[in-house]
Amino acid sequence: MQVSFTTADISAIVQPKQVRGATTEVVRGIASLGSAGAGDLSFLGNSKYRNEVAGTRASVVLLPADYEGEPQPDQLFLLVEKPSVALARLCARIEQLLWPKPAPGIHPTAWIAPGAKVAASATVGPLCVIEEGAVVGERSHLQGQVFVGRGALIGDDCWLMPGVIVAAECVLKNRVRLQPGVVIGSDGFGYEFVAGRHEKTPQVGYVLVEDDVEIGANSTLDRARFSRTVVGEGTKIDNLVQVAHNVIIGRHVILCAQVGISGSTTIGDYAILGGQAGIGGHITIGAKAKVGGQGGVSFDVEPGTYVNGTPAMPYMLGHRLEVLHRRLPELFKRVDTLENLLEKS
Amino acid sequence: MQVSFTTADISAIVQPKQVRGATTEVVRGIASLGSAGAGDLSFLGNSKYRNEVAGTRASVVLLPADYEGEPQPDQLFLLVEKPSVALARLCARIEQLLWPKPAPGIHPTAWIAPGAKVAASATVGPLCVIEEGAVVGERSHLQGQVFVGRGALIGDDCWLMPGVIVAAECVLKNRVRLQPGVVIGSDGFGYEFVAGRHEKTPQVGYVLVEDDVEIGANSTLDRARFSRTVVGEGTKIDNLVQVAHNVIIGRHVILCAQVGISGSTTIGDYAILGGQAGIGGHITIGAKAKVGGQGGVSFDVEPGTYVNGTPAMPYMLGHRLEVLHRRLPELFKRVDTLENLLEKS
Amino acid sequence: MQVSFTTADISAIVQPKQVRGATTEVVRGIASLGSAGAGDLSFLGNSKYRNEVAGTRASVVLLPADYEGEPQPDQLFLLVEKPSVALARLCARIEQLLWPKPAPGIHPTAWIAPGAKVAASATVGPLCVIEEGAVVGERSHLQGQVFVGRGALIGDDCWLMPGVIVAAECVLKNRVRLQPGVVIGSDGFGYEFVAGRHEKTPQVGYVLVEDDVEIGANSTLDRARFSRTVVGEGTKIDNLVQVAHNVIIGRHVILCAQVGISGSTTIGDYAILGGQAGIGGHITIGAKAKVGGQGGVSFDVEPGTYVNGTPAMPYMLGHRLEVLHRRLPELFKRVDTLENLLEKS
Repeated sequence: MQVSFTTADISAIVQPKQVRGATTEVVRGIASLGSAGAGDLSFLGNSKYRNEVAGTRASVVLLPADYEGEPQPDQLFLLVEKPSVALARLCARIEQLLWPKPAPGIHPTAWIAPGAKVAASATVGPLCVIEEGAVVGERSHLQGQVFVGRGALIGDDCWLMPGVIVAAECVLKNRVRLQPGVVIGSDGFGYEFVAGRHEKTPQVGYVLVEDDVEIGANSTLDRARFSRTVVGEGTKIDNLVQVAHNVIIGRHVILCAQVGISGSTTIGDYAILGGQAGIGGHITIGAKAKVGGQGGVSFDVEPGTYVNGTPAMPYMLGHRLEVLHRRLPELFKRVDTLENLLEKS
Repeated sequence: MQVSFTTADISAIVQPKQVRGATTEVVRGIASLGSAGAGDLSFLGNSKYRNEVAGTRASVVLLPADYEGEPQPDQLFLLVEKPSVALARLCARIEQLLWPKPAPGIHPTAWIAPGAKVAASATVGPLCVIEEGAVVGERSHLQGQVFVGRGALIGDDCWLMPGVIVAAECVLKNRVRLQPGVVIGSDGFGYEFVAGRHEKTPQVGYVLVEDDVEIGANSTLDRARFSRTVVGEGTKIDNLVQVAHNVIIGRHVILCAQVGISGSTTIGDYAILGGQAGIGGHITIGAKAKVGGQGGVSFDVEPGTYVNGTPAMPYMLGHRLEVLHRRLPELFKRVDTLENLLEKS
Repeated sequence: MQVSFTTADISAIVQPKQVRGATTEVVRGIASLGSAGAGDLSFLGNSKYRNEVAGTRASVVLLPADYEGEPQPDQLFLLVEKPSVALARLCARIEQLLWPKPAPGIHPTAWIAPGAKVAASATVGPLCVIEEGAVVGERSHLQGQVFVGRGALIGDDCWLMPGVIVAAECVLKNRVRLQPGVVIGSDGFGYEFVAGRHEKTPQVGYVLVEDDVEIGANSTLDRARFSRTVVGEGTKIDNLVQVAHNVIIGRHVILCAQVGISGSTTIGDYAILGGQAGIGGHITIGAKAKVGGQGGVSFDVEPGTYVNGTPAMPYMLGHRLEVLHRRLPELFKRVDTLENLLEKS
């Protein structure tokens, strides 16, 4: 991050309610209160760190409006309604600097099939491929080396990063953000065992990705056997996640890295699946349910519950069993003692 | 799936032995008996769903020849020898419509090294790279942005989907299907620890993929240290699977998503490895053995056995221990009671 | 591996101290003592295989200088100081044959933004993209279809294999080797939950990869929220590994395939993480610590210790508990017996 903001730049972005102190430093980085040094901006986002403010060496500190302390020499306090919102606004500005929205248009090295439709406001970067019948919506950005298959539909304001593949007939709604290397619409893993061989079941459905979904690098989402695999509105998927055919993921779900979801399973709205969790096929994870990291789930999970372990069980039960498991050496000794006592008696 | 079949189209494909009823609907989708509506085709693939046929709202239903019931108004029954085979035939036709075999030839944007050989009947899509000495066989299809390295051999009737990478010297036999983003022939992970540093052991073998293998999106198969890593005939590999150097996978094996196999391990014919299973190095999984999802195996597994858990153990033993593990709270109480009784006595 | 070496070629490479016997075979492969046949070269790298030498059918065998046996007819023994070093030298030669260093220059099909800088000694292969402000150092090799984002810095003598993506502002130092499909600099997975939606926290840091790092196929390394994600000098990362934002990985670390490391965690120098291990966020794995395959770690791990299991615990404790766990059926019976005895008494 090679950024440089004067204190005037920062004030203009975060619009402070009050200003205390001053600094001659230019802001070149962002850091936590404890690790910041000269030239860094820091912030009090969580009140439990309140007593770290007095000692921070940050040059600029974003603070809540009710903060009462005074800055050190060559230090600037900016008091704002919500420091975390002010910080997000600043980061968004940095993001714009790092990744300025490119001008609309199709790069001369991209290959667009004659029957594909690309909105005039969209940007198609170098060496992209857009096949016959595909549509790219308003202001969408295909960054470079992106592949959009036959008849696929990309909505408005999407951002497909380098190496993304959206296979034939798949549909992205609006404001979908796909990190590098994502594959949407690989074939589902379906075979019939006939005469000693696995015969392929054609996978002729598609993948539907709703508004405001983000999907992490190199994750893979399989097309349905027929009908569709769905990722609901606002859901966020981390890197290297596997979503099998005919899975239905609800709205505002969180799938952490390396999660795997087997075929035809349903994930309820607002569910959270920890990293490397594995979910069996043809089951239902209820709304707002939580599966711990590395959890292995083969049965339905009730809405709002928290399970973990393999096989997964309710969190409190698992924790209790884990505590007792660690006391097995003691238990074996106690049984030894009882046996000795009874032998003697 | 934007398909549209008249009942005449469907009859021509599935060749019914007998026809009952009629519908004015055009078939635009395929769905299970329970979820189908007007415009859908459904099927009785498993006799346990037989009593769902009477209530289905599908417009067309594929049924076994011995089915005795009558259709509802505006509903067509097609009686066939095997409904699942008839359905597969229909799906295959849909597949052809969605993904028509492209005309042979090399796309003008592809880059083919002067010393590479591409069969006249093969299709090389946009922005592919084929390096020096590589060979692409009859009717094979490199869809777009595919990379075929120096001296690699692609057999006949293969389908390499977008973003596939087949590195130098690797060999695909015939009818191999690689889903998007597959990497064949990355270096094996081998180092010697010398003077406080990990020195690379050159990985100069290759990967051999036999006939009729399919490999899922973004899976990675490492080349051998020397000699070769092998995937046997008819084996099917799901997404995000890792196969290390010098692994030998037998024929008609199933590797579910996110499986990892460490170096120099052998997997026997017809073995099945569940999702996220991890297999240690230098061991043998016997023919027709089964490893449960998330299982962790560090020892040889006997042919035909079923193991799961980490560390993996025979399924029935693991299940019994799991049941007893859940009874630990009871066991601790029973020992408490015994101790109290003995103290009093 | 289509190689062919005469015995004279091999002698020239390994510089034997002494030669015994002779063969008319040309060496076309390398194999272990037990599996080698005519035309293979083999070697005694580990003294425990010493008694396999007499029976090997290899045409050429590399042996330590103190080996006393005699070759069979049509077999050549080459006595060298260290057979494993001689073998590595031979493999390195094969590597050069398979992957000769390409001539410097930019392939006509690559797209280089006007403001990017590529050293004259570097090689940029077909269909690569290098964005504005990026720099590629001396003798570095971008093999084909590589993407280097805006302002990214690639050092000297790096090798980026096909399909590698280095996103904006990321930095590779020298001699970094990225296997196919690696993604450096995808966005970190960070959201604030506001009014029922996950709002994206901009990820405006970068990834720093130090000297002599190698990263395996399709692995993903996220950029920092701010500041940077770091991979230390000499660290080796296998395939399909996930490294989250703001992770700091030390020097000479080994991450086996499919490892996942959550955000803001620190991995100490020389640590080794087994395949599929999952490391929680905001923790520290000490220097030279070892985490077993599939281990799940949510707490700090002391330097030099070995933990495994989920939740991870010290190896010896885990092993002891595992042994007792398998004895649960016996323990239940013993408690039954005690209860029966007490009832009777």
